[in-house]
Amino acid sequence: MIKAYDDEYFMRQALEEAYQALEEDEIPVGAVVVSKDRIIGRGHNQTERLNDVTAHAEMLAITAAANYLGGKYLRDCTLYVTLEPCNMCAGALFWSQISKVVYAAADEKRGFLKGGSKLHPKNQLVGGILRDESSSLLKEFFKSKR
Amino acid sequence: MIKAYDDEYFMRQALEEAYQALEEDEIPVGAVVVSKDRIIGRGHNQTERLNDVTAHAEMLAITAAANYLGGKYLRDCTLYVTLEPCNMCAGALFWSQISKVVYAAADEKRGFLKGGSKLHPKNQLVGGILRDESSSLLKEFFKSKR
Repeated sequence: MIKAYDDEYFMRQALEEAYQALEEDEIPVGAVVVSKDRIIGRGHNQTERLNDVTAHAEMLAITAAANYLGGKYLRDCTLYVTLEPCNMCAGALFWSQISKVVYAAADEKRGFLKGGSKLHPKNQLVGGILRDESSSLLKEFFKSKR
Repeated sequence: MIKAYDDEYFMRQALEEAYQALEEDEIPVGAVVVSKDRIIGRGHNQTERLNDVTAHAEMLAITAAANYLGGKYLRDCTLYVTLEPCNMCAGALFWSQISKVVYAAADEKRGFLKGGSKLHPKNQLVGGILRDESSSLLKEFFKSKR
């Protein structure tokens, strides 16, 4: 049986956002927030365009989803993001009370898993979904900048 | 000799922002960003009004200061905040490359010092400026909510 909406499906949507960032010459990271198999918030990295270090994909997607819901908590929602969240974004996800976080590529250097910030202990965490595609996208971007 | 602009002077400005939050029935935390003895960004907690867990005083002040400067980095700037930053805000301050962070009251429960998030090692950190006034403000707020 085919499950129409699975983690890979939504991660592909997050990757669409990452490609959008790439088009805007931003570090290509994208995120979506999903509630009941429906995307209720999207975001891609816009730190350059907005001149704002806080404009990470996750932050924008969290804000968009909360706007959609009309409430600040994202209980029973899942965030899909193409790169392991940083300390800032993990902190925001903690505050949001989101249920699940799925990321594609690990971020050995700036990811929260080594960085020290924490998700809520009840938060489900899944890594590695479409990791290779996300990693390649980031590597190509940084290579082009050298 | 009297130094007109010292940490206490700017912390009092951050406290003004915290009182503004209180008036809006928000958890009373305020922040200002200072560059060359001039306030270039202000913010107070607006998580309720904006329905947004990311709308902490520090985040709004960082964004405002970057807007003012027309660039995302806050090198040679100081952030004054009335409560020790959380993991999210410390992560944002890390990305901003800000030079100095001054906070008033410690946050034993949700502060970054125990929470795990990190400022940049070069970042100067000062705690305790006008701590008692900030603590009292927060205590009174939470008491009124019980």
